[in-house]
Amino acid sequence: MNTIGTHFRFTSFGESHGVAIGGVIDGCPAGVSIDFQQIATDLSRRRGEGLSATTSRKEPDEIEWLSGIKDGQTLGTPIAFMIRNKDVRSEDYEPIRDCYRPGHADFTYEQRYGVRDWRGGGRASARETAARVVAGCIARQLLTQRQITIISTPQTPDNQDDGNTYGGIVECIINGLPAGVGNPIFGRLNAMLAAAMMSIPSAIGFEMGSGFQSAQMTGREFADQWNPSSFPKTPCKTNHCGGIQGGISNGMPIVFRIAFHPVATQTDGMECIDNEGRLLHVVLEGRHDRCHVLRVPVIVESMAALVLADALYNSLV
Amino acid sequence: MNTIGTHFRFTSFGESHGVAIGGVIDGCPAGVSIDFQQIATDLSRRRGEGLSATTSRKEPDEIEWLSGIKDGQTLGTPIAFMIRNKDVRSEDYEPIRDCYRPGHADFTYEQRYGVRDWRGGGRASARETAARVVAGCIARQLLTQRQITIISTPQTPDNQDDGNTYGGIVECIINGLPAGVGNPIFGRLNAMLAAAMMSIPSAIGFEMGSGFQSAQMTGREFADQWNPSSFPKTPCKTNHCGGIQGGISNGMPIVFRIAFHPVATQTDGMECIDNEGRLLHVVLEGRHDRCHVLRVPVIVESMAALVLADALYNSLV
Amino acid sequence: MNTIGTHFRFTSFGESHGVAIGGVIDGCPAGVSIDFQQIATDLSRRRGEGLSATTSRKEPDEIEWLSGIKDGQTLGTPIAFMIRNKDVRSEDYEPIRDCYRPGHADFTYEQRYGVRDWRGGGRASARETAARVVAGCIARQLLTQRQITIISTPQTPDNQDDGNTYGGIVECIINGLPAGVGNPIFGRLNAMLAAAMMSIPSAIGFEMGSGFQSAQMTGREFADQWNPSSFPKTPCKTNHCGGIQGGISNGMPIVFRIAFHPVATQTDGMECIDNEGRLLHVVLEGRHDRCHVLRVPVIVESMAALVLADALYNSLV
Amino acid sequence: MNTIGTHFRFTSFGESHGVAIGGVIDGCPAGVSIDFQQIATDLSRRRGEGLSATTSRKEPDEIEWLSGIKDGQTLGTPIAFMIRNKDVRSEDYEPIRDCYRPGHADFTYEQRYGVRDWRGGGRASARETAARVVAGCIARQLLTQRQITIISTPQTPDNQDDGNTYGGIVECIINGLPAGVGNPIFGRLNAMLAAAMMSIPSAIGFEMGSGFQSAQMTGREFADQWNPSSFPKTPCKTNHCGGIQGGISNGMPIVFRIAFHPVATQTDGMECIDNEGRLLHVVLEGRHDRCHVLRVPVIVESMAALVLADALYNSLV
Repeated sequence: MNTIGTHFRFTSFGESHGVAIGGVIDGCPAGVSIDFQQIATDLSRRRGEGLSATTSRKEPDEIEWLSGIKDGQTLGTPIAFMIRNKDVRSEDYEPIRDCYRPGHADFTYEQRYGVRDWRGGGRASARETAARVVAGCIARQLLTQRQITIISTPQTPDNQDDGNTYGGIVECIINGLPAGVGNPIFGRLNAMLAAAMMSIPSAIGFEMGSGFQSAQMTGREFADQWNPSSFPKTPCKTNHCGGIQGGISNGMPIVFRIAFHPVATQTDGMECIDNEGRLLHVVLEGRHDRCHVLRVPVIVESMAALVLADALYNSLV
Repeated sequence: MNTIGTHFRFTSFGESHGVAIGGVIDGCPAGVSIDFQQIATDLSRRRGEGLSATTSRKEPDEIEWLSGIKDGQTLGTPIAFMIRNKDVRSEDYEPIRDCYRPGHADFTYEQRYGVRDWRGGGRASARETAARVVAGCIARQLLTQRQITIISTPQTPDNQDDGNTYGGIVECIINGLPAGVGNPIFGRLNAMLAAAMMSIPSAIGFEMGSGFQSAQMTGREFADQWNPSSFPKTPCKTNHCGGIQGGISNGMPIVFRIAFHPVATQTDGMECIDNEGRLLHVVLEGRHDRCHVLRVPVIVESMAALVLADALYNSLV
Repeated sequence: MNTIGTHFRFTSFGESHGVAIGGVIDGCPAGVSIDFQQIATDLSRRRGEGLSATTSRKEPDEIEWLSGIKDGQTLGTPIAFMIRNKDVRSEDYEPIRDCYRPGHADFTYEQRYGVRDWRGGGRASARETAARVVAGCIARQLLTQRQITIISTPQTPDNQDDGNTYGGIVECIINGLPAGVGNPIFGRLNAMLAAAMMSIPSAIGFEMGSGFQSAQMTGREFADQWNPSSFPKTPCKTNHCGGIQGGISNGMPIVFRIAFHPVATQTDGMECIDNEGRLLHVVLEGRHDRCHVLRVPVIVESMAALVLADALYNSLV
Repeated sequence: MNTIGTHFRFTSFGESHGVAIGGVIDGCPAGVSIDFQQIATDLSRRRGEGLSATTSRKEPDEIEWLSGIKDGQTLGTPIAFMIRNKDVRSEDYEPIRDCYRPGHADFTYEQRYGVRDWRGGGRASARETAARVVAGCIARQLLTQRQITIISTPQTPDNQDDGNTYGGIVECIINGLPAGVGNPIFGRLNAMLAAAMMSIPSAIGFEMGSGFQSAQMTGREFADQWNPSSFPKTPCKTNHCGGIQGGISNGMPIVFRIAFHPVATQTDGMECIDNEGRLLHVVLEGRHDRCHVLRVPVIVESMAALVLADALYNSLV
């Protein structure tokens, strides 16, 4: 359940304040040149460097490559990597050792496993997404070879200086994906994208193309009409469906949006609860984003790249 | 790619105008009594019997049980079943044999496979969802044993008599699911639900709890506060998150909504395109819903049951 | 657990005296012409027609194709098929309704599931292998297109007329498989073949190339030396390793043997045991092979074809 | 393909002379106390310490635990670990940089991937099995809690001082496994064991119980008769079938044997071949076992533990 993909598979590991986070990519073809600079850039985007409404660990994310790459090229064997957790201040989290924060996974992890790593959010921390960005960046290099590009942009509220936290929406557009990629029924490309996006911490909604607005449209308004002059490459005049029909790409840009809810942690504290059902007011030190959505686009792109690399190799067979 | 689930697995097969549609359930525990009457009722709901804005094949869906059940009880072995396609009028679809309808999967299937069954939409037809309803109904009986209930309701436009087609939204509420069911990271219960729902034909958006509205809320508004008087069974005062935190159920009702776009087929015809890029005006005989969303709730419930049965057995280990 | 394969996947269903046995193939490419005559021939081989030491149901195995094939060609969608169980005499098995035969799976199924279909061996019956032969035959047609052939031959004791039952050994040789097919570590081609062969009822041993004799050889004797004159197509002078090195084919013929134990059912009865631990002498009517191994080669070839089709598509990516 | 298991899943990574070997265990229950001393002992057994006929790297295998364990207990999250490759002498392998050894996977990896890590055998090196021993040891602790024990012993030729290399046979006996564990058809416990054992480098044969000898026995000799006095716990008088019937354990000890061929590398050199088909006599420095089978038992036990942990959790559902 920590693995995504069937052909191009990524397994993630690591707790926020454990020794390291990292992952293993299995099924990446041999002979792919790794652009290490691009990975560093994407990790920097995830850290939100230069953004005032986000905070992050001060350390750079130093990747240790453990296997699967030789002389800068993939070997076809599992690519394992890790990023050590250096700048951790676990003592900041002592106050929630024996109680559960609202709006977090503290309670549900304890119910699921009977135990949890309370330090820094443990496995549920968004720190884990750094490993996704590394893996997604490798997947993306496979896509770049085929002129497939992924770009996403955040839409967030303006008033971010008032001591509150905010969510937002990220829109993602994939260009260059040819028609015929994906699978029908349960392996639909839109279903795989939805699962991947909803697996990002704080994701709470997903829509393709015209999305929820489609429910208000008539069939005449919604149905994308053929464009004979650009058929079959980009075959439609409009793109209400977001580039996927019957679970399979139709050659139009893939367009989707993800809604993210605001994070629950407030700098002036929150009402936690312990196992006896007692409320406790807890103020947590530590780094907490006012608008974490500004850091999310690169995660969205990484997850999209993982889904597409998997679908592409699947559809080639 | 025609299989959903890891422990409780359902594989679907069949084309709309082929010999039969059906499926195989693998991983259903032994000793479960099958409520055949309930299955008939659910199939009747899917056919939309009694609804004026939907049309359906005239035949009842007669299930032939092929294996895995003896004396009305499951054996623990694969449960295979099929429903023959009797009332088919393939000649109605002759006009689209060599061209592609707008807003359908004709073109994408042809791009993916180089061939397609053009009769009645073939594999892409919503007829396939009848098999999902049968499997979902068996999954649901496992949930009923544990007092878990699933109910969904459609929200559709009022003006449905104007010769147009309409989409809508289906809301689903799951009660009785205990805390601690689901998985973190890529196996998140919300991600599994999203994938299952987006795999329903014409689904175009998915949201949990407060969904897309969450993007407009502050953290103070969104974060569900603890309710000491009902903790830990139904632990929160509000349910903005929709009952899942960190991918794992928290004991609150599971609440989500799916947006469905209107179907493209119009009774007065549509502009199809052939392989040479020529537009053709085609009028299709056959049965076409004005508002298919009225028939969708039982499909949503069936998919939810499949996801929950799988997650429940997974979380027990 | 009733599914084999990752890319070319086959799911089997059915009890011996249930309505039908059959299966679903998912992942078969579109556009493959099905040779129905070859399938009939292979099913006839499995029934052991013309063999005096085997017995079988009198009916021919009539396949009903349910989906995935149109005009004799695969659609890329799931291929479902079934064979009805017609010539069943369940009353023959009444004596073992409440007791367990020695050397059969009666007891273990009951321990695993708490229930079993006692009629004709239920799910544990070798009748299930008919579905494997159908699926294997389709897989084999993919291999035939690539000039890959699979032939297996039985080696059985001579004295088969003495009222006893006998096992034997089946040797299988695959020609034409190019070097580079398979995977290392847990997906080794030899490991996949071993699992597939050991999944055949009564299989009790598996060996590649020189097999158990290799344990008596020195490294100098065992190591297959390069043959410069046929390198790289069939690169070695000998084939002690059986055509696979490091889990991947090396271009030499794939050679393996499977040992099958004799079946336990004797025509003059056997000592069964009931749940209270009481022994009962039971004579079963019905059809029981004296040497079932004579019917096994086509099953071995079918399982080999399923493994190879899966490995081939996997290695192409 | 570097992952084994469905519920208790182990993914292996690493090349022999890369940065590290290691793995990720996903699906291990929370709350399991890890016996680190036992893991060190098992790794020492794998290195063959104290054995004169084997050689190994001089370094101890120091495990770095990266995630999934806190205060000596599992968290239910992925357990990642690695062992750095310290005592590597890659220059020893320079002579085979551009040619292929006989009896190794050099040629097949190159055919499969178009590239290989020639240093120390790369991914095909038996060094990778150290990661299996670590994972297997954790699986084994789950079994020990249930009084399930696994012991294996090597049978090797006596004359091991003559400058040649030798193979051998390892017998493995599992005690304490209750009846009812495993799955029928393609998930048979014997099939899973066969695949796991054949995935060990140099494994070339596998047999359960009486194995290949069964092919010479009559049905009367082979069929294990019921033992009323020990039924149902250890239900049979003999154990020709090796403790598994119909793919499911019957309560008797699980007994199987694996044949291993001798390693090809000779201290006085071997005939390698290059891409132009030219033979080259190559003498490799480095550490090469005369009888590596003496080090194999702990690997066999580890793989058995991985298979049983997976089957056990599967069968509990």
